[in-house]
Amino acid sequence: MSSQFGHVFRISTWGESHGGGVGVVIDGCPPLIELSEADIQGDLDRRKPGQSEIVTPRAEADICRISSGVFEGKTLGTPICISVVNKDARPESYKEMATAFRPSHADYTYQAKYGIRNWQGGGRASARETIGRVAAAAVAKKVLKKLFPALEIVAYVKTIHAIEASVDPETVTTAQVEANIVRCPDPVVAARMIEFIKEVRGEGDSVGGIIECAVRNVPPGLGEPVFDKLEAELAKAMMSLPATKGFEIGSGFSGAKQRGSEHNDPFVMREGKVRTTSNRSGGIQGGITNGETIFFRVAFKPTATIFHAQQTVTDAGEETELKARGRHDPCVLPRAVPMVEAMATLVLCDHALRQRAQCGLTDYGSLTTV
Amino acid sequence: MSSQFGHVFRISTWGESHGGGVGVVIDGCPPLIELSEADIQGDLDRRKPGQSEIVTPRAEADICRISSGVFEGKTLGTPICISVVNKDARPESYKEMATAFRPSHADYTYQAKYGIRNWQGGGRASARETIGRVAAAAVAKKVLKKLFPALEIVAYVKTIHAIEASVDPETVTTAQVEANIVRCPDPVVAARMIEFIKEVRGEGDSVGGIIECAVRNVPPGLGEPVFDKLEAELAKAMMSLPATKGFEIGSGFSGAKQRGSEHNDPFVMREGKVRTTSNRSGGIQGGITNGETIFFRVAFKPTATIFHAQQTVTDAGEETELKARGRHDPCVLPRAVPMVEAMATLVLCDHALRQRAQCGLTDYGSLTTV
Amino acid sequence: MSSQFGHVFRISTWGESHGGGVGVVIDGCPPLIELSEADIQGDLDRRKPGQSEIVTPRAEADICRISSGVFEGKTLGTPICISVVNKDARPESYKEMATAFRPSHADYTYQAKYGIRNWQGGGRASARETIGRVAAAAVAKKVLKKLFPALEIVAYVKTIHAIEASVDPETVTTAQVEANIVRCPDPVVAARMIEFIKEVRGEGDSVGGIIECAVRNVPPGLGEPVFDKLEAELAKAMMSLPATKGFEIGSGFSGAKQRGSEHNDPFVMREGKVRTTSNRSGGIQGGITNGETIFFRVAFKPTATIFHAQQTVTDAGEETELKARGRHDPCVLPRAVPMVEAMATLVLCDHALRQRAQCGLTDYGSLTTV
Amino acid sequence: MSSQFGHVFRISTWGESHGGGVGVVIDGCPPLIELSEADIQGDLDRRKPGQSEIVTPRAEADICRISSGVFEGKTLGTPICISVVNKDARPESYKEMATAFRPSHADYTYQAKYGIRNWQGGGRASARETIGRVAAAAVAKKVLKKLFPALEIVAYVKTIHAIEASVDPETVTTAQVEANIVRCPDPVVAARMIEFIKEVRGEGDSVGGIIECAVRNVPPGLGEPVFDKLEAELAKAMMSLPATKGFEIGSGFSGAKQRGSEHNDPFVMREGKVRTTSNRSGGIQGGITNGETIFFRVAFKPTATIFHAQQTVTDAGEETELKARGRHDPCVLPRAVPMVEAMATLVLCDHALRQRAQCGLTDYGSLTTV
Repeated sequence: MSSQFGHVFRISTWGESHGGGVGVVIDGCPPLIELSEADIQGDLDRRKPGQSEIVTPRAEADICRISSGVFEGKTLGTPICISVVNKDARPESYKEMATAFRPSHADYTYQAKYGIRNWQGGGRASARETIGRVAAAAVAKKVLKKLFPALEIVAYVKTIHAIEASVDPETVTTAQVEANIVRCPDPVVAARMIEFIKEVRGEGDSVGGIIECAVRNVPPGLGEPVFDKLEAELAKAMMSLPATKGFEIGSGFSGAKQRGSEHNDPFVMREGKVRTTSNRSGGIQGGITNGETIFFRVAFKPTATIFHAQQTVTDAGEETELKARGRHDPCVLPRAVPMVEAMATLVLCDHALRQRAQCGLTDYGSLTTV
Repeated sequence: MSSQFGHVFRISTWGESHGGGVGVVIDGCPPLIELSEADIQGDLDRRKPGQSEIVTPRAEADICRISSGVFEGKTLGTPICISVVNKDARPESYKEMATAFRPSHADYTYQAKYGIRNWQGGGRASARETIGRVAAAAVAKKVLKKLFPALEIVAYVKTIHAIEASVDPETVTTAQVEANIVRCPDPVVAARMIEFIKEVRGEGDSVGGIIECAVRNVPPGLGEPVFDKLEAELAKAMMSLPATKGFEIGSGFSGAKQRGSEHNDPFVMREGKVRTTSNRSGGIQGGITNGETIFFRVAFKPTATIFHAQQTVTDAGEETELKARGRHDPCVLPRAVPMVEAMATLVLCDHALRQRAQCGLTDYGSLTTV
Repeated sequence: MSSQFGHVFRISTWGESHGGGVGVVIDGCPPLIELSEADIQGDLDRRKPGQSEIVTPRAEADICRISSGVFEGKTLGTPICISVVNKDARPESYKEMATAFRPSHADYTYQAKYGIRNWQGGGRASARETIGRVAAAAVAKKVLKKLFPALEIVAYVKTIHAIEASVDPETVTTAQVEANIVRCPDPVVAARMIEFIKEVRGEGDSVGGIIECAVRNVPPGLGEPVFDKLEAELAKAMMSLPATKGFEIGSGFSGAKQRGSEHNDPFVMREGKVRTTSNRSGGIQGGITNGETIFFRVAFKPTATIFHAQQTVTDAGEETELKARGRHDPCVLPRAVPMVEAMATLVLCDHALRQRAQCGLTDYGSLTTV
Repeated sequence: MSSQFGHVFRISTWGESHGGGVGVVIDGCPPLIELSEADIQGDLDRRKPGQSEIVTPRAEADICRISSGVFEGKTLGTPICISVVNKDARPESYKEMATAFRPSHADYTYQAKYGIRNWQGGGRASARETIGRVAAAAVAKKVLKKLFPALEIVAYVKTIHAIEASVDPETVTTAQVEANIVRCPDPVVAARMIEFIKEVRGEGDSVGGIIECAVRNVPPGLGEPVFDKLEAELAKAMMSLPATKGFEIGSGFSGAKQRGSEHNDPFVMREGKVRTTSNRSGGIQGGITNGETIFFRVAFKPTATIFHAQQTVTDAGEETELKARGRHDPCVLPRAVPMVEAMATLVLCDHALRQRAQCGLTDYGSLTTV
């Protein structure tokens, strides 16, 4: 049950890095949504390897195929199966990992959990697993667009190592993000980031950073009390992505250093709606959206697989040294941008439908129905 | 479905701050665990209001009652219902909130979601809701103790505002944490924290901080790939607690500033077991425990309810000013320490049983069965 | 997780026959539904023991209490906890069952599953467990009434042993059902049933029968393909009631003896709607309602606890003889009528909200939107 | 969420009759189970069309492919994706159903629910959907075999129309069932059934019947109290199969005509185990297995699609007549036998793992640990 996500718009993913392929089944998608493979391919292309000189050169076109749930260009309401075949698998590059565990990768922990692992290319722990998430989110995006046409989700690289961009989450556009290969909408800083990643790659090393994401024009009232608070679901969604180490929303960790009188967001009326004059809450209060922009940050560690010799042990319990081969991202962030957007989209789509289930998408937020 | 947590050890909580009371039903608890109300009361006492001069003075003894699932001192395997009656409710203190929304509280968002709210004392968004979590976790703790006798979970206050304690997660004890009312195991820093909280309270203001939690002697192999990664489940668990703004595990946000060659944790053999020489992973790799100490940090914002006049609006859409009365914590962290432990306990207990379901608690981590 | 039912309108029940009490938590109930304890008490009274001379004389008023989720007479959208205290427990009547297993009861199987059981009065396997179901269904009924005002659910005793009533599911009313203590709307046959039950009780024996249930004025489109077909969910719901041995819908087992040309229900247009001229489908086709009356039958075995000496074994593995004492129903059917209605109500309410989640309660059935 | 089944061994199916294909993802399968496509193909062959002269002639080899979750011949513990491509689709045979609803089929109800349907060959309501169930169950069977090597599940045709076989559920073998094309282990009656089906097919008509299933050598203690009683889960599983109208376990509907003194199953000790001298309970008491053979019966209606002209309406609301073309089973039962076995296998496998989660597969049933 660990490969499922969502309550009403529920996805089930499968697949390993090396094997027959990867994919997803979506259950609970509303009917009558226009959908074709082209709607999905765009987001898969943003995620795919080999798209630029700062990501892994694995050559995968990641062409998706819809096998069910769509008829004459529209969703049927029944499960949608989307799959991608693995083409450029090179198990021979991983031969030494058949016995030795890569440090800070999931080799040892999978072995400890299951007593077996697919040592070819990371198996289920490979970032290839995220193809299913991105494909499903492309569908969820169309559902959200139908329910809330103005809603926008934009993620971008905020920092690489110590290099930080200046970005306004209220106005940043996808076009700005997509304008460069590192997906940082601050063009000057982006150039420095790209140079830095190339340098690190040249050293056979890797590097981490922070992705920020903004969700704009969300209606108030999405999310749930207690365990399924929207920020809790977003935190889980983001921390389920490979290589993540931290999540913060609104004021985040810096909010822990403020007083209530500084941190609280005063309410005002604007254009007949309840709004706040600041947004340290990050668009969510008590687990439920207040109509302001949701923004959060996700910390990614440096890629575990590097080309330095590292101390490790074998599955026979012998100490050894391992120097990776294979094809790897020196920095996961450029390709993680669509993954962060995908997970945010899945969370919001599921909560929109949950809200419709329980409360019927009535606009109580306008206060006119009170 | 938002008030349920866990897949196999599943809890369902209920209750508002002002109303009949609060409680929890635990479904899926193993049978034959010795259990009495006394096992639960200790943790509830650590959470309850009025326990010290730096928390809310609301006078609630929070005496729990087990109504089902236990027979002759042992769990039956059937649902365990635990409840606490609300005694010291004072709805009159909240009268102005019947119409005006408290800034940065959940008043407006509940209204926007449901078109109705219990305005007395925060309703379902009150921290009283966490009684059910703490009670359920007291039971989960006994289950974990039976499965993994050496496992320990210790949370503590790491920072209050800018005041930071120095604590070693590998050795800190519950006795050290409980030695002072702020629950910071660094006694010198704790004294400063207490002074600071009193000062802030005197000003009618509030303050935030960071709680750190260590889980020691966890067997390798707990957690799941993809969506239910252990760090993802912990992130959700923590971010579902009231007033949380951020979560990080292991190296966390600082890991985003490291290179792979610095960040990776080398493997060695120690006492016949696979271990790491550093622990930037925070005890989890690829979503699954590696046997090292799990440690993570949770950021809490300053309490929203303060005694300053604040700008806000009413549920009729009129701008107004609100100055809170009622009884509130100037700083939630001392009472949040048992809540953080509770959520970590619930996540680990559920994953221990999930692992037993799928793999049978076989100790593959010792590598001897490979 | 075995004591939970429903996906969106989800209930969690707890409680044993002898112990602190029984109850239910409802999560996912729509807000703004008018609700008081009086709305629930009526159905609990139909279920309670001691209500007539042909049911168990256990003296329980079964007064319910709502502890959460309702404010100023309306549901809040947050969990609703409803509980009933056990008053007339007499554990001494069950003393011999502390060691000997009652034949065809759940004593042995609970012991085999859990290694422990509450031997006082059936524990969790007692029909007292159904109080939580009936209470939750009273709430679900109000939700359904708001969504589909014309929808009606009427269950009644169809047969007792070999005595069969003649009832038209399209027209039978609750008033007719409640007109006598056996809850059979055919008054002449009802009198014979009552006499027969008294006779059987006089012999210290028990007897079974069949309950039929009609759900009228259901909109087309409720239910789901594949696993959660409406008839599958109804079957599970009914077979989860104590003492049930069979379920059939529409033509049921007799349909297995027909040819397609006899069994199929022809479609016609009536008052602008798609209708059928016969209803062997029982109102459901392919798991989804077609707008005709749903009707199904549930077989109940004779009560296991009888006052004859029976051959059995002890939990020490010794053969022995057991003659029950305690207070028992000679026939469960009169009290099972509200239980059958309750389970049907819960299934329909959950599916109505599931439909609203995915498709938005659009009336496609009218064909005008095609 | 309607295409998912199971809590711990959870399957998600997808696919329509005409479209890219059908398949299943299994999440939660234990690792280290030997598995290849050949293990699955055998059961798919028993289910496939065209296998004999009394089933539909649609020519589908139904060759399955495993795309994930298996490595070097063993399960990895990660999701297993199994798919089958549709080869012999003939949408042109269904052209008239593009507008006219087939009586007693799911055409109208899908349209009423979703506002759209795949009218080619039944879409998601086609029995092709059961390929995913049968494939998943082939995996579950191997899991069960490892946990309980002696456990056996055998289903067979008990009646066709009014023709009833005489079969002993305690001794019937799969070889006997597979000895003829109608899958009835009573060879004399089987011959009559085959003749009858041919006759009905010749008339362009269809016919129903009853399948019985026996589960032998089940350990005591599987199943759950209250909602997830084993018989309730079996009922749901069976009633989720296409064309089912009824389910009964043990004494079933005939038990409703007995007295307690006739119906109860006395306990005795046999070979150190608690056993019963009769088995009207059908192997389950209070929702939990008692170690006796589980046996139940499932009623199937005659196939809805027949070659007679039938009265119906179009999706424009006009009355019309429809005479089916296409390829259809005159009687679904021979091919439904492996489907019934599959669903019983899935229920038992899931409950075995649920029991291991909560109680650890301790053999309390032997009473030696009491």
